[in-house]
Amino acid sequence: MRKIVCDLHAELVRNHLVAWTAGNVSGRIPGEDLFVIKPSGVSYDELTPEAMVVCDLDGNLVEGEHAPSSDTAAHAYVYRHMPQVGGVVHTHSTYASAWAARDEAIPCVLTAMADEFGGEIPVGPFALIGDDSIGQGIVATLKGHRSPAVLMRNHGVFTIGATPRAAVKAAVMCEDVARTVHISRQLGEPVPIARADVDRLYDRYQNVYGQRSPR
Amino acid sequence: MRKIVCDLHAELVRNHLVAWTAGNVSGRIPGEDLFVIKPSGVSYDELTPEAMVVCDLDGNLVEGEHAPSSDTAAHAYVYRHMPQVGGVVHTHSTYASAWAARDEAIPCVLTAMADEFGGEIPVGPFALIGDDSIGQGIVATLKGHRSPAVLMRNHGVFTIGATPRAAVKAAVMCEDVARTVHISRQLGEPVPIARADVDRLYDRYQNVYGQRSPR
Amino acid sequence: MRKIVCDLHAELVRNHLVAWTAGNVSGRIPGEDLFVIKPSGVSYDELTPEAMVVCDLDGNLVEGEHAPSSDTAAHAYVYRHMPQVGGVVHTHSTYASAWAARDEAIPCVLTAMADEFGGEIPVGPFALIGDDSIGQGIVATLKGHRSPAVLMRNHGVFTIGATPRAAVKAAVMCEDVARTVHISRQLGEPVPIARADVDRLYDRYQNVYGQRSPR
Amino acid sequence: MRKIVCDLHAELVRNHLVAWTAGNVSGRIPGEDLFVIKPSGVSYDELTPEAMVVCDLDGNLVEGEHAPSSDTAAHAYVYRHMPQVGGVVHTHSTYASAWAARDEAIPCVLTAMADEFGGEIPVGPFALIGDDSIGQGIVATLKGHRSPAVLMRNHGVFTIGATPRAAVKAAVMCEDVARTVHISRQLGEPVPIARADVDRLYDRYQNVYGQRSPR
Repeated sequence: MRKIVCDLHAELVRNHLVAWTAGNVSGRIPGEDLFVIKPSGVSYDELTPEAMVVCDLDGNLVEGEHAPSSDTAAHAYVYRHMPQVGGVVHTHSTYASAWAARDEAIPCVLTAMADEFGGEIPVGPFALIGDDSIGQGIVATLKGHRSPAVLMRNHGVFTIGATPRAAVKAAVMCEDVARTVHISRQLGEPVPIARADVDRLYDRYQNVYGQRSPR
Repeated sequence: MRKIVCDLHAELVRNHLVAWTAGNVSGRIPGEDLFVIKPSGVSYDELTPEAMVVCDLDGNLVEGEHAPSSDTAAHAYVYRHMPQVGGVVHTHSTYASAWAARDEAIPCVLTAMADEFGGEIPVGPFALIGDDSIGQGIVATLKGHRSPAVLMRNHGVFTIGATPRAAVKAAVMCEDVARTVHISRQLGEPVPIARADVDRLYDRYQNVYGQRSPR
Repeated sequence: MRKIVCDLHAELVRNHLVAWTAGNVSGRIPGEDLFVIKPSGVSYDELTPEAMVVCDLDGNLVEGEHAPSSDTAAHAYVYRHMPQVGGVVHTHSTYASAWAARDEAIPCVLTAMADEFGGEIPVGPFALIGDDSIGQGIVATLKGHRSPAVLMRNHGVFTIGATPRAAVKAAVMCEDVARTVHISRQLGEPVPIARADVDRLYDRYQNVYGQRSPR
Repeated sequence: MRKIVCDLHAELVRNHLVAWTAGNVSGRIPGEDLFVIKPSGVSYDELTPEAMVVCDLDGNLVEGEHAPSSDTAAHAYVYRHMPQVGGVVHTHSTYASAWAARDEAIPCVLTAMADEFGGEIPVGPFALIGDDSIGQGIVATLKGHRSPAVLMRNHGVFTIGATPRAAVKAAVMCEDVARTVHISRQLGEPVPIARADVDRLYDRYQNVYGQRSPR
């Protein structure tokens, strides 16, 4: 799991989701109340599986030589309150953060968005770092919502998934649709997709797409 | 043909036309009612010629260990109804999809667009995945049209060509002109090119350009 | 000169000025009425010094196994009428072409633009490929103008320089300022730079900057 | 210090902050009235630790075979008047320069901006190269300001830091937030962050973030 989570940070860089050290991936260790997360303030070039840290579900450091990411409390809160979640990703990716700064959900006007998010991508509350506020905002917004991504107001994106890789995929797709819908709206209004069609696309994608292995 | 089609997926990545696994290339096997296409949900890094799958013109898997792309039915429909087509490409490239989300054709205001597309790039209907609807929309829009690219509403781009490489070129050029015309229109109205000049440019490019070998 | 011109095409790719094969560099052979130019329709990956072709100042092929670039007549016209020019570059770079499609010169609102272009970047006429029209438009616009770049209406950019490298630099800087000024104008009006200050910046840059070797 | 400063130029390229040779990093030599800076007009590919030049705090060349950067006087002025500064960076990065061309400060609407800049990123005066004007504008704007970045009107960005690496980080983050806030404002007004929350975020980030080593 250290290696999986370490390697997935390269996907954040490759997909242009992060500047400097501003983004992190974590993964729940199956069968234990622990998760692996990026150390704080370490550059992506210097990340190694050994440098990754292990925390318990209260966000306390259990194993590792570095301080855990400053976003650890938010990740921990999500794992504590959403048992089905196996991976969490946080970025300040440009277009998604631009919607978040306006406190505006991304409307579902692309079939790829219906596939992955099952509707709009919602905005969560403004919350300060330092306690459980961010985690609470994420969970309150995503519980009972189809979207695996939430835009935290004035901040950035958190995504969840059954695995760390699924959460990274959601982060990549979130920025991709945030950009396309933004650009579409610059010159007029995109055509909405009917709710029944969004439902059909979402159901099909969740049940039919891919090679029948965990995403 | 497996190797050609496999390698062309790298051009989609290199030209920033795809995020995650959302794009595919296929190529008709000359002299047979078969085509090679990308397997579903496999990342571009892991694609090998051996991983590519072979389908018949009804979209049934004929050879290969993976499930074919979820867009296989659309590719198959195009090969079945447009015998001159030897390659098909599908992407959700950003700027082209932004025009598609607004249900708006891209006007011909660049000589490079007159060269490659012979006029505007048209929009096709909204169609759900799962049957022949997307294929029908592509063929109905492109038959009798000069453009090798169609913007499918709320979805993305399909391009065709005499070869898979020509279809990839059309996908690259489609995104390139979609972006340039979008940016031009952000600050005013681009000057149209007279129809007669579009015709002259198109005729010249189709007949004179390049090294006299199949594009 | 074949190697110099060949290698400079990699700068077009690296600086994101070209899609597919749509851009070319040429260089005058010192002391002879000849220039080296890219062959037509060949991808940048496959370019080698040996593949480059040599033409006379009427654009006729003198040496080489490939057909010369379809823009050869324009390059030749420039060399014929501007004896101080040692290099010519043509691209369809995105932001510069967006200004060109609106028939709008780029105003001088950046010190870097005053340095390199000495004022606005002008627009040349709409001209069809196939005869001397494009070359005439370039020369008519750039003769007596400080700018080494011209935006050809509905088409793209041509730049000139004392050397092919200087012309490539002008093409890179043209796209860079076209982009920055575009983005600045999206949210309001950039502040103009006083003509006297533009003159001072231009004079200084042309005479003081760099390591006293030919750019 | 030559090697540190040389290597940091690669970060400018990797983060897309510079075109051609238009950007430079310098670093104060600890305990001496000297700093290392990029030579003028040399491409980033050709930079080596040996090619870097050493200047005194009046900007005079002390050691090195090349002429120092044409921005040396501005760097020297900053080191002379801000003793806590150990590194200075100058770029024409696109989005930051776009705000600078409009003479408009970047409002603080992102938590990442509160973290790094402690509020808005201010604009400095228009100043011509050639004497102390640019240095004076930088120091007058940044003295007593939390922001380590200043947008010089119609010109570009200067950033400062306790180390050259910290100044490069500020340059990367400045362009990142300049871009996100620009894009956010294209489709409406971003929500401001309350001054008290900006203060809390800034205090926490300056005192708690990272691995307790100098940034």
